[in-house]
Amino acid sequence: MNTFGKIFRLTSFGESHGRGIGGIIDGCPAGLELDIDLIQKDLTRRKPGQSKITTQRMEPDQVEFLSGVFEGKTQGTPIAFAIWNKNQHSNDYNDLKDVFRPSHADYTYIKKYGTRDHRGGGRSSARETIARVVAGAIAKQILAQVGVSIQAYVSQVGEIKLGKSYPELDLSKTEDTIVRCPDLEVAEQMIARIEKAGRENDTVGGVITGVAQGVPAGWGEPVFNKLHADLGFAMLGINAVKGFEYGSGFEGTKLSGSEHNDVFVKTESGVHTTTNNSGGIQGGISNGEDIYFNVAFKPIATLLKEQNTIDKNENNITINPKGRHDPCVLPRAVPIVEAMAALVLIDHYLLNKLNAI
Amino acid sequence: MNTFGKIFRLTSFGESHGRGIGGIIDGCPAGLELDIDLIQKDLTRRKPGQSKITTQRMEPDQVEFLSGVFEGKTQGTPIAFAIWNKNQHSNDYNDLKDVFRPSHADYTYIKKYGTRDHRGGGRSSARETIARVVAGAIAKQILAQVGVSIQAYVSQVGEIKLGKSYPELDLSKTEDTIVRCPDLEVAEQMIARIEKAGRENDTVGGVITGVAQGVPAGWGEPVFNKLHADLGFAMLGINAVKGFEYGSGFEGTKLSGSEHNDVFVKTESGVHTTTNNSGGIQGGISNGEDIYFNVAFKPIATLLKEQNTIDKNENNITINPKGRHDPCVLPRAVPIVEAMAALVLIDHYLLNKLNAI
Amino acid sequence: MNTFGKIFRLTSFGESHGRGIGGIIDGCPAGLELDIDLIQKDLTRRKPGQSKITTQRMEPDQVEFLSGVFEGKTQGTPIAFAIWNKNQHSNDYNDLKDVFRPSHADYTYIKKYGTRDHRGGGRSSARETIARVVAGAIAKQILAQVGVSIQAYVSQVGEIKLGKSYPELDLSKTEDTIVRCPDLEVAEQMIARIEKAGRENDTVGGVITGVAQGVPAGWGEPVFNKLHADLGFAMLGINAVKGFEYGSGFEGTKLSGSEHNDVFVKTESGVHTTTNNSGGIQGGISNGEDIYFNVAFKPIATLLKEQNTIDKNENNITINPKGRHDPCVLPRAVPIVEAMAALVLIDHYLLNKLNAI
Amino acid sequence: MNTFGKIFRLTSFGESHGRGIGGIIDGCPAGLELDIDLIQKDLTRRKPGQSKITTQRMEPDQVEFLSGVFEGKTQGTPIAFAIWNKNQHSNDYNDLKDVFRPSHADYTYIKKYGTRDHRGGGRSSARETIARVVAGAIAKQILAQVGVSIQAYVSQVGEIKLGKSYPELDLSKTEDTIVRCPDLEVAEQMIARIEKAGRENDTVGGVITGVAQGVPAGWGEPVFNKLHADLGFAMLGINAVKGFEYGSGFEGTKLSGSEHNDVFVKTESGVHTTTNNSGGIQGGISNGEDIYFNVAFKPIATLLKEQNTIDKNENNITINPKGRHDPCVLPRAVPIVEAMAALVLIDHYLLNKLNAI
Repeated sequence: MNTFGKIFRLTSFGESHGRGIGGIIDGCPAGLELDIDLIQKDLTRRKPGQSKITTQRMEPDQVEFLSGVFEGKTQGTPIAFAIWNKNQHSNDYNDLKDVFRPSHADYTYIKKYGTRDHRGGGRSSARETIARVVAGAIAKQILAQVGVSIQAYVSQVGEIKLGKSYPELDLSKTEDTIVRCPDLEVAEQMIARIEKAGRENDTVGGVITGVAQGVPAGWGEPVFNKLHADLGFAMLGINAVKGFEYGSGFEGTKLSGSEHNDVFVKTESGVHTTTNNSGGIQGGISNGEDIYFNVAFKPIATLLKEQNTIDKNENNITINPKGRHDPCVLPRAVPIVEAMAALVLIDHYLLNKLNAI
Repeated sequence: MNTFGKIFRLTSFGESHGRGIGGIIDGCPAGLELDIDLIQKDLTRRKPGQSKITTQRMEPDQVEFLSGVFEGKTQGTPIAFAIWNKNQHSNDYNDLKDVFRPSHADYTYIKKYGTRDHRGGGRSSARETIARVVAGAIAKQILAQVGVSIQAYVSQVGEIKLGKSYPELDLSKTEDTIVRCPDLEVAEQMIARIEKAGRENDTVGGVITGVAQGVPAGWGEPVFNKLHADLGFAMLGINAVKGFEYGSGFEGTKLSGSEHNDVFVKTESGVHTTTNNSGGIQGGISNGEDIYFNVAFKPIATLLKEQNTIDKNENNITINPKGRHDPCVLPRAVPIVEAMAALVLIDHYLLNKLNAI
Repeated sequence: MNTFGKIFRLTSFGESHGRGIGGIIDGCPAGLELDIDLIQKDLTRRKPGQSKITTQRMEPDQVEFLSGVFEGKTQGTPIAFAIWNKNQHSNDYNDLKDVFRPSHADYTYIKKYGTRDHRGGGRSSARETIARVVAGAIAKQILAQVGVSIQAYVSQVGEIKLGKSYPELDLSKTEDTIVRCPDLEVAEQMIARIEKAGRENDTVGGVITGVAQGVPAGWGEPVFNKLHADLGFAMLGINAVKGFEYGSGFEGTKLSGSEHNDVFVKTESGVHTTTNNSGGIQGGISNGEDIYFNVAFKPIATLLKEQNTIDKNENNITINPKGRHDPCVLPRAVPIVEAMAALVLIDHYLLNKLNAI
Repeated sequence: MNTFGKIFRLTSFGESHGRGIGGIIDGCPAGLELDIDLIQKDLTRRKPGQSKITTQRMEPDQVEFLSGVFEGKTQGTPIAFAIWNKNQHSNDYNDLKDVFRPSHADYTYIKKYGTRDHRGGGRSSARETIARVVAGAIAKQILAQVGVSIQAYVSQVGEIKLGKSYPELDLSKTEDTIVRCPDLEVAEQMIARIEKAGRENDTVGGVITGVAQGVPAGWGEPVFNKLHADLGFAMLGINAVKGFEYGSGFEGTKLSGSEHNDVFVKTESGVHTTTNNSGGIQGGISNGEDIYFNVAFKPIATLLKEQNTIDKNENNITINPKGRHDPCVLPRAVPIVEAMAALVLIDHYLLNKLNAI
């Protein structure tokens, strides 16, 4: 169950302290001139040690392609790739070998598999998302060729919420701040909030908003694989995510139908809706308007604080973890959200080629 | 793309005004004594015309099994079933044949397929969910044998919100009110709110909460098919759903990690957590605590009101639909939420047989 | 595991003495004007009671479409269909309820599932192939639009072998004889051989040859899903099939490489090979030449003769079955071979749309 | 389409002259103590340069595991592995860059993808089968724990055919000869035949027989995924394979049903059949008897001889290839046949856990 996608399929592998993280992309069309710099750029947006508000662990996170690319072009054959682990301090985890940390996957892995690689979270580490960023960055390149762009940004950190919605913002400013919030004033508050969490050896959660523009009408499958169901599935598969909503989302439940309905109008630039509570998706299928959605991230569970818990023999114990961790994952999760959205959209782009003879 | 599930697979078929709705369940274990009454009971909870706050359209919604069951027992072979359509007024839709109703799937279907069955929404009608209720009711019977129960209830209608969370409620009272809210006082307010929407020829949305109890630790797949990602995917595939959250959800993003973490303790009844912000799932895998989640439903788009829109030739027009519709789908959606949760859980129950030699 | 195909997917259901046989086709492109007569024609070629050399059991075998077709056109939604069982003599099987007939699936079903529908073979009956013939007949209609035709014929019955290969034959004569061998002289011998088997209450096997013409170069997947691997998988999934070979097949193993290689030449009509030992497939991908293959059918196991066997309590017993059975399934299996080939080819036709951006 | 298997899934990657060949195994149960020596042993049986009758190209073919194994045990997480390419003479292929060699995949790849890695056959090289041998060797270890063993041997080279069937042979002698035929006398003739082909710069085909013992009754899926259909699919996916038959196979088509049927008897050692024309499979499901099958390999297409063909501009040309090639692939293909059989059987072993609640 480590494969994502139906047509453009990523199978990911790797543990945080093993040989490396990587994957195989099967189903990538042939003939794409791969822009490696664009892939590396997204990896760099995700990598640790990039600013004062992320973990200070340093990883080069350079991707190596192992197959499927020849003379710079995809061949239609499986694209295997790896990012070799370099900066593992596995001994940091010796004390945690027999401990089930609160709200981690330690306990549940043992219950499921009877065994686990305890070093750095093993397979449950968010380091696995590197593979998704690589695959997503390739998907983005294909989507760009058909006019689709995807941008995500941090819209909430703890209780600090960006009041404006995406049409009121200049998304090109997102990368101007280390927290990846396009409103520079709110960004400062968010940074201060994360620094406070860091000082307290605590963590803080928040929300990332994603926007896909240029998706033509007609993408998505009407019943189970609604476009937003696939997006939600993708986002909920990211570490620490607790919720997903698109368009009017949870707030929209309070509106009446006559307030919520998006009226179609024919304009000079084609068919549009006057509002977009639908979030660009109707009946599970894109309608040509912008697609937008929110992804809720809990405060991550790794605290550098004394906490009660149990060990593998189910004794009640106290732990006091040390190490290098992010007080807030959201800035680094922005490219992950984009990557997962790209993987969903590329799949539906390709699926949509199959509708007619 | 009309199949749900990896091991216990439902493939659904049917249009609201065609011959009927049905499906094939492939991968149901052999030897289950099917309790048809329990299946019919869930169909009856979903069917139209059941109370004054639902559409007055009457459908018997009786299931007929076509294969896979012999002498009352499942055979391990595909279980095909159908619910024949009886009470279609297809002519009601003649006026809508060439019209794209606001916030419906009319426009997007045409953009995707170039053709559509316009009668009663065709394939995009929520009548398709009958197939899910049948399959879910079978899944529930297997889950009951392994100690798992699933209950859903209406926790919000429009702005009326049930203040209590599920441990504070007596869920056995859910079926005591026609709105399926276990707090009878709040239920009365919800019913009044729905009746108001009905009088205004308008609609109203809300939230359904689902709870799964008795799931042992170890169900779920750690990376893409996290248990909550599969649940979210299932819920977002239900008509009119706009959001999904589990455990602490969107509200939990405001907590610090030290507030959010669920501490393990060994008690007389085994390992437990003192709080349950995790919603019973850690690292994508169940930890033995209750699983709970919220599902946001928009107010449905079918209004018996004059509205602006376009026709198939992209002319701006005005429509004024007539017919029989629900002012609020939530009461009838409760068994659908349960059914989809059951389909996810049965799949992970079966998948979990594959972890060890 | 009752689904065939990756893009154009048939999920089949039904037992020989249940309510009926049918299926759901998911992934059929929208907008196809269905020619029901062509579907019915293939069903009639498969149905029992069609000539003196088939079982005298009579079944109308009329297909009813339950969904996915509106105003004569496919909608892109699931196409469900059923052929209702009419002429079941289930009591004929009462004596066999507790018996494991030699070389049938009685014993293995019980070992797998612990239960079985014993009436007429239940799910293991070749009556299930009706669903494949319907789906294949739809696939053929799409393939015809892109210039691909598929024809099968009986090339061997028992020891009577058609000496000529398909380019030496006039395949349009296949339907001129009840045995479906295009060489009328050999056909007479085959008919006599089957009649002899019938008189002796015995059965006889043989070989069906399939030919697909008009497949352009480029269909097939290079590694596991080689075009011939998918064809072989399809054919080996037909009841009573024991072997599959394509192109030079088993005989080709005796040639040297210099004899076996097919030399490319550029001619006025494009690139061709001077010989076709490759059977139209190289490296798993079609090369534009004719695709041809052989399918071996064992003599079926249902004999109206006294035989030793065991019962469900593992007592050694003697049985003496009665009933209506085919002495030779090959004439009726010709449309099944064609249908399965069509299902493979339609899948690769659709898959091939995904190779390039 | 580079994934094999439904539960125990191998996704393979790599080109013959790229960075290496490898794969990801997803779905391997946790807790297996991996015996790396056994894996390496099968790789060594497959590797080039192992004897005077194989290509003299030398490759160490050492497997490196990249994930999924911790402290010697499988973790239930994806097992990634690679065999790095070492001894590529890519320049040997410069002359073939623009040439479509007869009966190779050069032409069909270009027709499918519009691009190809021409070096050493790229993805179409049989070097890809290394990944299958690794995965198969792991599957064998699990199967051994449940009492299942798989052995293959060369039963025909060109016109030289081993007269005896497997029960008359001592299969433990298979590895005693470089040609992997357990009858040492026939083996000598086969070796001489291959040496002759080598001297003539030609190639020779043949047949490999596979035998699986210890498979209990009940494995296999009754309709499309019959156990033999999955085996046939697996074998036909091996490079150069042209045919597959099991049990009585093509010869069995000449028998009458009364000769062909396998009679059940209860003996002291349980239920058995007095003959085994069924090849251990009835109705697609194993019956507890030995499973045996034949796989036909064509003489491979790479000849060190002058031949006519076309170039990429469709000019008729003459080529005269040089290089290091096998005159006969069969001895090296024996472990590949075993590996593919093991992948099928492990899948059905795991699938069979899902039949009952």
